[in-house]
Amino acid sequence: MNEETRDKLMGVSVATLATALFKRGLRNQVIQGVHPVGRKGRNMVGPAFTLRYMPAREDRNQLTEFRREDHPQRVAIETCPEGSVLVMDSRKQANAASAGDILITRLMVRGGAGVVTDGGFRDAAVIAELDIPAYHTRPSSPTNLTNNEAIAINEPIGCGDAPVFPGDIVVGDDDCVIVIPAHLAEEVADEAVEMTAYEDFVVEQVKAGQSIIGLYPRTRDEHLTAFEAWRKANGR
Amino acid sequence: MNEETRDKLMGVSVATLATALFKRGLRNQVIQGVHPVGRKGRNMVGPAFTLRYMPAREDRNQLTEFRREDHPQRVAIETCPEGSVLVMDSRKQANAASAGDILITRLMVRGGAGVVTDGGFRDAAVIAELDIPAYHTRPSSPTNLTNNEAIAINEPIGCGDAPVFPGDIVVGDDDCVIVIPAHLAEEVADEAVEMTAYEDFVVEQVKAGQSIIGLYPRTRDEHLTAFEAWRKANGR
Amino acid sequence: MNEETRDKLMGVSVATLATALFKRGLRNQVIQGVHPVGRKGRNMVGPAFTLRYMPAREDRNQLTEFRREDHPQRVAIETCPEGSVLVMDSRKQANAASAGDILITRLMVRGGAGVVTDGGFRDAAVIAELDIPAYHTRPSSPTNLTNNEAIAINEPIGCGDAPVFPGDIVVGDDDCVIVIPAHLAEEVADEAVEMTAYEDFVVEQVKAGQSIIGLYPRTRDEHLTAFEAWRKANGR
Amino acid sequence: MNEETRDKLMGVSVATLATALFKRGLRNQVIQGVHPVGRKGRNMVGPAFTLRYMPAREDRNQLTEFRREDHPQRVAIETCPEGSVLVMDSRKQANAASAGDILITRLMVRGGAGVVTDGGFRDAAVIAELDIPAYHTRPSSPTNLTNNEAIAINEPIGCGDAPVFPGDIVVGDDDCVIVIPAHLAEEVADEAVEMTAYEDFVVEQVKAGQSIIGLYPRTRDEHLTAFEAWRKANGR
Amino acid sequence: MNEETRDKLMGVSVATLATALFKRGLRNQVIQGVHPVGRKGRNMVGPAFTLRYMPAREDRNQLTEFRREDHPQRVAIETCPEGSVLVMDSRKQANAASAGDILITRLMVRGGAGVVTDGGFRDAAVIAELDIPAYHTRPSSPTNLTNNEAIAINEPIGCGDAPVFPGDIVVGDDDCVIVIPAHLAEEVADEAVEMTAYEDFVVEQVKAGQSIIGLYPRTRDEHLTAFEAWRKANGR
Amino acid sequence: MNEETRDKLMGVSVATLATALFKRGLRNQVIQGVHPVGRKGRNMVGPAFTLRYMPAREDRNQLTEFRREDHPQRVAIETCPEGSVLVMDSRKQANAASAGDILITRLMVRGGAGVVTDGGFRDAAVIAELDIPAYHTRPSSPTNLTNNEAIAINEPIGCGDAPVFPGDIVVGDDDCVIVIPAHLAEEVADEAVEMTAYEDFVVEQVKAGQSIIGLYPRTRDEHLTAFEAWRKANGR
Repeated sequence: MNEETRDKLMGVSVATLATALFKRGLRNQVIQGVHPVGRKGRNMVGPAFTLRYMPAREDRNQLTEFRREDHPQRVAIETCPEGSVLVMDSRKQANAASAGDILITRLMVRGGAGVVTDGGFRDAAVIAELDIPAYHTRPSSPTNLTNNEAIAINEPIGCGDAPVFPGDIVVGDDDCVIVIPAHLAEEVADEAVEMTAYEDFVVEQVKAGQSIIGLYPRTRDEHLTAFEAWRKANGR
Repeated sequence: MNEETRDKLMGVSVATLATALFKRGLRNQVIQGVHPVGRKGRNMVGPAFTLRYMPAREDRNQLTEFRREDHPQRVAIETCPEGSVLVMDSRKQANAASAGDILITRLMVRGGAGVVTDGGFRDAAVIAELDIPAYHTRPSSPTNLTNNEAIAINEPIGCGDAPVFPGDIVVGDDDCVIVIPAHLAEEVADEAVEMTAYEDFVVEQVKAGQSIIGLYPRTRDEHLTAFEAWRKANGR
Repeated sequence: MNEETRDKLMGVSVATLATALFKRGLRNQVIQGVHPVGRKGRNMVGPAFTLRYMPAREDRNQLTEFRREDHPQRVAIETCPEGSVLVMDSRKQANAASAGDILITRLMVRGGAGVVTDGGFRDAAVIAELDIPAYHTRPSSPTNLTNNEAIAINEPIGCGDAPVFPGDIVVGDDDCVIVIPAHLAEEVADEAVEMTAYEDFVVEQVKAGQSIIGLYPRTRDEHLTAFEAWRKANGR
Repeated sequence: MNEETRDKLMGVSVATLATALFKRGLRNQVIQGVHPVGRKGRNMVGPAFTLRYMPAREDRNQLTEFRREDHPQRVAIETCPEGSVLVMDSRKQANAASAGDILITRLMVRGGAGVVTDGGFRDAAVIAELDIPAYHTRPSSPTNLTNNEAIAINEPIGCGDAPVFPGDIVVGDDDCVIVIPAHLAEEVADEAVEMTAYEDFVVEQVKAGQSIIGLYPRTRDEHLTAFEAWRKANGR
Repeated sequence: MNEETRDKLMGVSVATLATALFKRGLRNQVIQGVHPVGRKGRNMVGPAFTLRYMPAREDRNQLTEFRREDHPQRVAIETCPEGSVLVMDSRKQANAASAGDILITRLMVRGGAGVVTDGGFRDAAVIAELDIPAYHTRPSSPTNLTNNEAIAINEPIGCGDAPVFPGDIVVGDDDCVIVIPAHLAEEVADEAVEMTAYEDFVVEQVKAGQSIIGLYPRTRDEHLTAFEAWRKANGR
Repeated sequence: MNEETRDKLMGVSVATLATALFKRGLRNQVIQGVHPVGRKGRNMVGPAFTLRYMPAREDRNQLTEFRREDHPQRVAIETCPEGSVLVMDSRKQANAASAGDILITRLMVRGGAGVVTDGGFRDAAVIAELDIPAYHTRPSSPTNLTNNEAIAINEPIGCGDAPVFPGDIVVGDDDCVIVIPAHLAEEVADEAVEMTAYEDFVVEQVKAGQSIIGLYPRTRDEHLTAFEAWRKANGR
C-alpha cells in the first residue's frame, strides 16, 4: 500500500471506517469479537497476509511437526512481508493457541505491521508488551497443535466472520479491527479523514453544549459555516 | 428519585443490592454480561430511561435516516432527563454499535447519570475516558444502522435478560449493573446501607483472623456485641 | 506438594506446562475461559481442593441456608488446606456468583494459595486487590443461592471443561490456569524448567534477528552449541 | 391482504421468496432458528400481528396474573384478526413457554392463519396436531410466567433476528418462515410465482440429466426456448 | 414411589406439572434442551437414579477402562433399581456419547423406567425403537471415553440446568422432562390430575367457540357450573 | 475407494467406526452437529470431495455471480466425482443456505454418494425426499450469497469441527457422519465388521437377560465360546 494511504489510516478510527464502508454497502467488514492483546496507543495498518487453520487431526499434529521447516505456521511467520498484517483464521476457536510470544516476536523483528487471530494467543501477557499490535479473543495457553492445524498461506479466509482477501487493508484501533477491500482503500482513507475532521469539530461543539440534532449528521447550514471556520482555524 | 436514596445507593455495592432483592423474591435484576467501559471509581445511580432496538431492515436503515430529527436514537439522547440512566435493549447483540462517543458525550453534557447497553459501544476507548459511567458487553465499531433500528423510547424492555421499567432505579458499580423496581428503591437502599455496615465490619474481623462461621451471616451473639461497638467507634 | 516442585512451577508459564502435558497425551488440562480477577505478577501454585455446585432449587436455597454451620460453601472455605487452591465447578455459569470478597478474604487469611471458578465472583473489584490469586470468567453480583447450590467438597470435578481431581497441582499465570495430574507434577515441573531456559534463550536470539526455522524447535546443531554457552553465561 | 396475493404466496417456497427479497437488498427477513411444530403440507400466509415479551419480574408474574382480563397474552389471542399470523418476540429464549395448546386452539378457532415464536411452545405435541401452522424453536413446558412477561401488542418487534412490523406478510413452509415488508408483498408474490415456474422446469431438466451450468440461472438461449414450450405444455 | 402416584403421573403432562411446581415457587425443574429419542406415546415416570460424568482425562479413559467390572457407567446400568429413571449429568455436552444401545437395552431388560442425559446417545436410531423412554439433546456417535468420564453414582447432580436429587420423581412426555422433588410428588400428582380435568374441559369449550377470557383460568362462575356438569358426564 | 471396503462400510455404524478410530488415537473425526435431512435407511459412503465457503462480501455476492460458469459452488456440483461425498465447510453457520434442491438433485443425477454441510440446506423438505443422503444442521432458506461465498474446491477443510482431507472416506448413518483418514479406511472397515458381529451377538445376549459385565467388552471366556458358536450359526 502507498505510504500516504497508510498515514491517513493511522489517523482515523475503525468506527469511522466502518461507516464509510457501510455507505458502500459493505456491512460485515469488522472482525467480530477480537480486541487488542495490549493497547498500543496507535493504529495497526497494513495489507493482509493470511494463514488458515483447520481442525487438528491427532496423527498429523504431534510436536515433531514443528521440526518440519515447511510447517505452514512457521513459514507464514517467516514470509509475511514487511509492513503486512498477519491475519489468522482460527475458526473462532480459542481453546488452543493461534501462536505464542516467540513467533510474534519474530514477526515483529521481521517488520510485520501486526497480527490478528479470531482464536487466542498463548503467552498473551508477554505479547501485550511487544512493540507490535496484536488482536485476539482471549489468552489460550495450549499449543496450537491441540486443536489447530496450519494448512494454507495467503488464501481468502474468514476471520471473526469478516471476509479477508490477501492484500485487503487491515486497520485496528483500541476497539476493533476492520478489513478494507484493497480497491477501496484509498478512497475510503480520504473520506475517513474528512469525516474525522467533522467528527472532531462535532465533539468540540457538543462539549460546548450544542445539540446533536442538525449537527450530527449535519443538516443545518449554520454548522457548515462554523465547520469551515473551524477547519481554517485548526488547519484541518 | 429523592437525593437521600441516591446518596445511599452511591455507597453500596451491586452485590449487596442483589442480595436485598433476592430476599424479596427477585432473582433476575442484574443485567447479565455487561461491564464498565471505563471504571469510574464511583457508582452510577439514576432512574431508567429506556431505548428499544429491533433488528435493522436495510431499506429503513440507510445513513440518511440519521438526518431525520425524530430518529429515536437521537431523540432518546436529547430527551433523557437529567439524572437518569439511559438503558438500551440491543437484544444482547454487539455485532453493531448501540451508540458512539458523540452521542454519549451529548448525554453527559445534558446531565445523564449513565448509560447501559446489552450490546456494544463504538468509540469505546473514548467513551471510557468520559466523565459518565457507561456499561456494555464489548466494543463494536459498526454503526448501529448495520443491525439495530432504534424503534421506541421509554417502554418496558429487557436488558441483559433483566426486566427494566422506565423509572426503575439503576445502580452500577465496577462489577455489574442492577435494576431496582421503583417502589422498592427506598427500602432496599436503607437495608443495603445497613448490610454494608455489617459487611465492612465482617471484612475487618476476617482480616484479623476471625472465622466466617457464625459471623457471616451472624448467628453467634458475640458478633452482635462486637458489631455494635464497632458501629459506635466508626460512626456507622 | 514438595517445596522444590512448587518453586519450579512458580517460574514457568502455563503455556510451557501445556506443551509438556501435550507431549504426554494430555490435551485438555487448561481450564478454558477463565482469567485473573486481578493480575498478581506471580504464579498461583498449589494442590486442588474442590467444591462442586449444582443448580439451585429455590426451596433449598433461601438466605437462611447460610446460617447452617455445615453449609458446604462455608465449610470449603474454612477447611481448604493451607497452600491449596480452591477449585470450584460452577458448571460454567456466571449468572450468579461462586463466592464474594468476604469468603475469599477468609481463604486468603487461612493461607489458601488461590481460587478458581468457571463461574464468576461478586465483589470482583475488591477481590482483584486482595493478595491471593483468583480466576473467574466475569464479575457476577447475584448471590450464589440464586443459581448455585454448593453440594460437595473435594470430589473429582470439571472446571472450564478440564478434569480436576483433588490433589492435582493447579498452576495459574497472567493468561490461564492448568491442572497437572498429581503423579506427573514433579517430572513436568522439571521438564518445564528446562523448556523455559531454552525458550528464554530463543527469545534473545529472535530479538537479535535469528530466524525461528531450525531454532524453535531446535533442529540445527549450531543452536545447541550456542544454547549451552548461553546457559553457562546465564547460570541456567 | 388481498386474496390473490395470498393465493400466490400459498404456492411458492420461502427459499424463493428469500431470493426475491435478496434482489431488493433485504438479507435478514428469514426468522432464524424456527421450524414447524408439526408439518401441515401447506404454507402459512397472513399479515403479522405481534406480541412482545420481556423478561419476567417475579412479583409481576404470579399465576394470578392470568386472571386479569387485560393480560396482554390473552388479549393478543382474542384480538388477533382473522387471517393474521401472530408473531411473538420471545427474545429467542425457549426456557419458558410462549404459549400452550389451549391458547393456540383458541387462536385457530378464531381464524388465525398461524403463529410463530422465537421461543418454544408447551403442549407442543398437541399443537402439532392442530389445524393451524405453528413455528417455534423447541418444546418448552414451563409456563411463560417463568421467564416471559407479555408486555405489548402489535408493536414492531424482532423475531429470530428478523425485523417484523405489524402488517408485514408472513409466509411459512416446511423449512422456514419469512417476513415480507407489506409494501413489497404483491410484487414479490408475482415474481416468486414466475421464479417457481422456472425452478419447476429446471428440476425436470436436471432430473433428465441436464447440467445446471447455463440453466440455473439461465444464461443460455436454448433453455429459454425450452422453458417457453414447457410453460405452454404445462399451463404455467 | 407408590403405584397410585405413578399412575396419576402417567396421565398428566409435563406442562401441567411445571405449573403446579411454579405455584410452589419452583421455576427450574424442567430439564432444558432434551427431547425424546423416539416418541413412546406414554409418559416416563420413576424416581431418579443418577450418574455424574466429568471431563475425560486421556490417560484414565482408554478403551481398556471398560474391562473394569467396577466402571461407574457399567455399574450404574447394572444397579439402577427397577422402575427408576437413570438421569445422567453429561455437563450439557453432546460431542461424545453418554451411552449406547447395548447399555440402554440392558437397562430396559433390567426394568429401568427410562433414561435421560443432557448430552447425547450413540446408536440413537436403535434406541428410538427400544421399549424404554430415552431423552437426550442429539445423537452423538463418539464413545463416552472421548469426552466423558463416569465418576459417581447417585449423587445430587444438575441435568439440563435442573437440580436432580436421587429419589426425585422424574416425569417425561413427548415434549419435555421434569423433576419433582420427592416430598412433593404426591400432592403435585393429585393437583395435576385435577388441573388436567379442567384443561380437558377447557379444550372442549374452546373448540366449541368459547373465549378463554374468564375460562382459562376460570374467573367466571358460569364455567364452574359447566365444568361440574362435564365432570359428572365424563366420570372425571 | 475399492468396492469391498465400501460394502463393509455400508454395514457398520458410525458409532462403531468412531470407536475403531478412537483406538488409533483419533478422537475428533465425527462431524459435530449434523443430522440427516431425511433418513435413507442405508449408510452414505464415499471419498470426500470438498467445497470451502468464506463469509460473503456484499459486492462479490450479488445474484449475477451465479451467471458465471466458473462459480465454485456450481463447479463443485458439476465436478464432484461419481461415488464421492461432497463435504462443505460452511463455518458452522446456518443463517444462509449451503445449497438447495436443484443443486443437490444435479449432484444426485451425476452419481454423488451424498452431501454434508455444517450449515443448512434450503428446500430441505424437498431434499429429504431425494434419493441421495444429505446431512446438515437445520433448514435455511436464504440464498448462500447472503452469508457464504464458495471460494475453493477440494482443499483440506473443517466441517463440524472435524478435519476433512479430500479423499478421506466419509460415512453417514441415521445418527451422525464420520471422516476416516484415507490410509486407515480398509483396516478400520475390517475391524468395524468384526466389532459389529460381536455387538450384534451382544445385543441378542442382553435381550435374553445377560449382564453386560464381562460381556461388553468381553472379559469372560464363556462369552468367547458362545460368540464363536453364534458366528457359525449365523454365518458371520
